[in-house]
Amino acid sequence: MKKPNIVILGAGYGGIMTAVKLQKSLGANDANVTLVNKHNYHYQTTWLHENAAGTLHHDRTRIQIKDVVNTSKVNFVQDTVTEIKPDEKKVYLENGDLSYDYLVIGLGFEAATFGIPGLEEHAYMINNINSARLIRQHIEYNFAKYNNEAERNQERLNIVVGGAGFTGIEFVGELANRVPELCKEYDVPRENVRIINVEAAPTALPGFDPALVEYAMNSLEARGVEFKIGAMIKEVTPHKLVFEKDEQREEIPTNTVVWAAGVRGNSLVEKAGFESNRGRTPVSDELRPNGYDDVFIVGDCALIMNEESGRPYPPTAQIAIQQAEHTAANLKRLINGDGHLEPFTPDLKGTVASLGHDDAIGVVFDDKKLFGWSASAMKKVIDNRYLLKLGGLPLVLKKGKLNFFH
Amino acid sequence: MKKPNIVILGAGYGGIMTAVKLQKSLGANDANVTLVNKHNYHYQTTWLHENAAGTLHHDRTRIQIKDVVNTSKVNFVQDTVTEIKPDEKKVYLENGDLSYDYLVIGLGFEAATFGIPGLEEHAYMINNINSARLIRQHIEYNFAKYNNEAERNQERLNIVVGGAGFTGIEFVGELANRVPELCKEYDVPRENVRIINVEAAPTALPGFDPALVEYAMNSLEARGVEFKIGAMIKEVTPHKLVFEKDEQREEIPTNTVVWAAGVRGNSLVEKAGFESNRGRTPVSDELRPNGYDDVFIVGDCALIMNEESGRPYPPTAQIAIQQAEHTAANLKRLINGDGHLEPFTPDLKGTVASLGHDDAIGVVFDDKKLFGWSASAMKKVIDNRYLLKLGGLPLVLKKGKLNFFH
Repeated sequence: MKKPNIVILGAGYGGIMTAVKLQKSLGANDANVTLVNKHNYHYQTTWLHENAAGTLHHDRTRIQIKDVVNTSKVNFVQDTVTEIKPDEKKVYLENGDLSYDYLVIGLGFEAATFGIPGLEEHAYMINNINSARLIRQHIEYNFAKYNNEAERNQERLNIVVGGAGFTGIEFVGELANRVPELCKEYDVPRENVRIINVEAAPTALPGFDPALVEYAMNSLEARGVEFKIGAMIKEVTPHKLVFEKDEQREEIPTNTVVWAAGVRGNSLVEKAGFESNRGRTPVSDELRPNGYDDVFIVGDCALIMNEESGRPYPPTAQIAIQQAEHTAANLKRLINGDGHLEPFTPDLKGTVASLGHDDAIGVVFDDKKLFGWSASAMKKVIDNRYLLKLGGLPLVLKKGKLNFFH
Repeated sequence: MKKPNIVILGAGYGGIMTAVKLQKSLGANDANVTLVNKHNYHYQTTWLHENAAGTLHHDRTRIQIKDVVNTSKVNFVQDTVTEIKPDEKKVYLENGDLSYDYLVIGLGFEAATFGIPGLEEHAYMINNINSARLIRQHIEYNFAKYNNEAERNQERLNIVVGGAGFTGIEFVGELANRVPELCKEYDVPRENVRIINVEAAPTALPGFDPALVEYAMNSLEARGVEFKIGAMIKEVTPHKLVFEKDEQREEIPTNTVVWAAGVRGNSLVEKAGFESNRGRTPVSDELRPNGYDDVFIVGDCALIMNEESGRPYPPTAQIAIQQAEHTAANLKRLINGDGHLEPFTPDLKGTVASLGHDDAIGVVFDDKKLFGWSASAMKKVIDNRYLLKLGGLPLVLKKGKLNFFH
């Protein structure tokens, strides 16, 4: 009897958790499981802002795939997906192709730049390990250059972050930690450096409780972050950012614009022909796109509706992980010949945004608000729980955030 | 009775050692001693290549002036010299001016670029703390960029060093240590990186014993350094270096040219009106320029002849330090009313060039050749002796190279 081929695309939160759960639940003769990923490592997207700021080394954020995936149970193919052809049940890679009986799409987000002129070309993105460590080096390089020029150039010391959503706020929090270190390293006076957060919405952290937003902004402003709220970015060039606020145009001279204000689904998902909206595909309760019962989508590319609010759930690590666990269980049912798949419902545990320096804000469980050290500690607990799920206690000890009191 | 004003320009090897010796030998009522320096720190020029390669932090190389100069005995003025007017017995600074009875000029070298097109604009120089840490960051930034571009750009990974003299060789030795670390940090295959040393002379390390030169080149080539000997640099642009060897022109695509092939004296010394050759002034046996008995020149700007070889002594830290000690003693004689000054003769102890990785070559004392670990250890001993002289045992413990077995 032929074993079914399960192909998993992407080793982000959704993809790698699907692989890890399948390797635990399936027997050796149940299926061929193949995980495809561009790099030989998984990384925690929710930690990349720390790598980009330079407050955490990227090797803490990435996990070698062989450390959590047992390659005697799951095949690992390091390659880049170029095309998904669901009607042929095939996936094309740069260096080959794979046929599947069941496909799990865990391809991650792409930055959405909303057509803002110059943004795609000149802004830096916190997308992956490569781009995060480039931001770290780009900022540091500008500090290193500063004292080497006859004319002091303020463009080198103005750091502009587009977006005061979750990632933008967490990133400026880390920058506020990092900048004093850079000032010391390169003999630059702290007061010459500006960290400017530009947000188009009428508030920072839209969707968060206003009291927590105020706490976050106060905490960050006290550490030297400037906010431009209700400010639309109009243009980015290599040496400036232009925004409009209250019908006034303003320019900030800067070499460093980090765009943290928009994500969209993966363009490979659009090209595959699934119904989709900016790379996110509406999926059934079983996380399958309309008309393709052999395809599951987990994570950033899956569009699921929050019935209560009438709006889609935002793509988060928390939901991606739950979808992966759910999909692994459903795949086991399919392979065991059980036609009945369980419907997926997100079980939201809460959200915590770190502000750097052992500070954070969050809402956990039933609208309990947290801030300060307790929120920061909770954030670490959440991160460590994920590592525990993925690779057990050894992985928590190796990569976990155990510095509760530092 | 009026106390004479002694003004010392520059806190390099020569200037700071003059100040330290005077603060020990002069009584509080003997003289007003004022040290002028651009930064509030002294640095060891002979360690800058390690800071530039990124193998040693620049805070190890620099020493706060207040840590070795007792400011209750010696005035310290942090300012930049703009002009020396020996006929007025005055020194002009960016933010003021000083009159002197005795002047000690310890202003350091400048890079000599021999009119090679593009060199001054596009090459990096190992001149000071600012420029050294910029080289470190420039190289690292290019590694960080490499994996972020769709087209892999070899210009980012070719590092070209102009000059296989003392500094050039020591720098490529450190680079050979550093590059594997950068490859690991940025996921770049080591074999993609080139370290290329271009030297116009017919040999590396001209003036060194040929057996030691061969040892050095073998050691460096084994660690991945390429040599282009007898190759004249013709042009440097932001993205390439052009050289000519055996009447053939060759181009190396590179963003990183580090120029370590030429130094000259300080242009302020030329402008002061002393007789000089490319910023180096011939001085008497008492280290005074012709016609100015109240001016002493120590270090890179003093031109003294080696009677044996008939050529000038090269400007080295060793000679600068000896000149400083000698000048401090002569100044004490002058102030005590003893008209007889002692003539200066260099007492050469030898030369050791480090090759990185606990390797080095050198000649010490009476033409005894050293290489390998023993030469490397000797180099550290020499460095530590200087620190002992400058700031005693506490400074050796704080900044010394104590890692003989690492």
